[in-house]
Amino acid sequence: MPQPIIGVFDSGFGGLTVLRALLPLIPGAQYVYLGDTARLPYGAKSQATIARYAVESARFLEQQGADLLVIACNTATALALPEITAAVRIPVVGVIEPGARAAHAVANSGDVLVLATSATVQSHAYRETCARLGVQATEMACPLLVPLVEEGWTDHPVTRDVLRIYLSEALAKCSPQAVLLGCTHYPLIAQPIESMLRELGSQARVVDSAQATAQATADTIATKLGKLPTTSTPATFKCYATDSVDKFQHLGSLFLQHPIEDIQLLDIGG
Amino acid sequence: MPQPIIGVFDSGFGGLTVLRALLPLIPGAQYVYLGDTARLPYGAKSQATIARYAVESARFLEQQGADLLVIACNTATALALPEITAAVRIPVVGVIEPGARAAHAVANSGDVLVLATSATVQSHAYRETCARLGVQATEMACPLLVPLVEEGWTDHPVTRDVLRIYLSEALAKCSPQAVLLGCTHYPLIAQPIESMLRELGSQARVVDSAQATAQATADTIATKLGKLPTTSTPATFKCYATDSVDKFQHLGSLFLQHPIEDIQLLDIGG
Repeated sequence: MPQPIIGVFDSGFGGLTVLRALLPLIPGAQYVYLGDTARLPYGAKSQATIARYAVESARFLEQQGADLLVIACNTATALALPEITAAVRIPVVGVIEPGARAAHAVANSGDVLVLATSATVQSHAYRETCARLGVQATEMACPLLVPLVEEGWTDHPVTRDVLRIYLSEALAKCSPQAVLLGCTHYPLIAQPIESMLRELGSQARVVDSAQATAQATADTIATKLGKLPTTSTPATFKCYATDSVDKFQHLGSLFLQHPIEDIQLLDIGG
Repeated sequence: MPQPIIGVFDSGFGGLTVLRALLPLIPGAQYVYLGDTARLPYGAKSQATIARYAVESARFLEQQGADLLVIACNTATALALPEITAAVRIPVVGVIEPGARAAHAVANSGDVLVLATSATVQSHAYRETCARLGVQATEMACPLLVPLVEEGWTDHPVTRDVLRIYLSEALAKCSPQAVLLGCTHYPLIAQPIESMLRELGSQARVVDSAQATAQATADTIATKLGKLPTTSTPATFKCYATDSVDKFQHLGSLFLQHPIEDIQLLDIGG
């Protein structure tokens, strides 16, 4: 098949951790990434507002010729996946179902702790998805982790103190076998999260939903669009941001762990 | 004169600290407050985006019959005051000039340290305004303080640690006589800021621009609209929020230190 066009959407930069997992797995695709940076963060906003923003972005990516859409944003998936799926004609992959399945596999019928933004936790999307898989999930809102990652304090005593507070509170409520990173910013502090779990006496394994989402995307392409592209064609990627291109270039490169060159400023009316 | 209608605009809740200072000073006015909560925070966004959002909000308040507009948002004042002033026909009061004047008065020809968001610092609006007054200002971006206040950690060891880091870095660069709170969230942690200054050996006085802005508003009403209203008519206030009314009611009441009842959800196309 010709190169599939994969649209990847996030409220900001975090979804680039999903794009980072996609690149080695589906190297022959064309990627179009949209970060709705003018309106981020979604994590503390209402369902109606998040759904309106996410649907506008999804339609834009469909208009760019995307064959498939990856909602690489936990908050948008948790609060607006049905609205997004209804608004476009192409297949849509969210981060929650793949993440919950990966945590299920790792937890080995034990409990799962989900760390996420306030909006994702209030939606209980992870708890409900895990319940369908027969897994009990405890959800913990960690609103300071995104600002700490964006401040660049990924290896910092304050971040460790904040993690100690959030994780102590969570571990007082459950004894998880797996800790699911339910926000695409958190893979950047996966190591401090794991260290703090050990310090607090938990042997839970940390599960990153970015990897699981990339695998689910490859499966969906194989099932719905035919076989995967051959690897002889190199991947291309193009980014759109609704706010400062300079900031996207700087912060985005940290998340992707690769320089970003082709970025265009986009006005979708926000 | 009849009750003047005073429009107060902020990206979120912080501007309610300015409204709190206005109420006792101009008790006979009608207040209309707009919090652009769907698109907050402005502090990390670009000038073009902030100007577009702020102008839309200013026009809305003018359409509601406002006689005067208070831009109770440091970021919007720093980055978009000329655009806002050009977009409406009514007098506009920002927070920067009054804040800088108050700091100047307190600093007694010494240096001023301004704590603010990244966008406000990058604009250098405070440094330039202070320079016009003959005062040397050092600006320090404190991006974690807004999330800490919104998490409710106003009296918390992590907030003290973060303040120790930011203020140590700032005091290594200058020896201020006054520390100006250049963000409307910061009055909620004025006390921890003052304590940390003392702990770090600084005797600088903390200056809150909300109070100074309220005074400038009263002066503008007296000069441009005639005398102040008589206090026999009680103040009324009505709030609009572009995102969740429930969240505005909860968090807004903390900032205003008064219950908020009349809130309407507003869609200004964001």
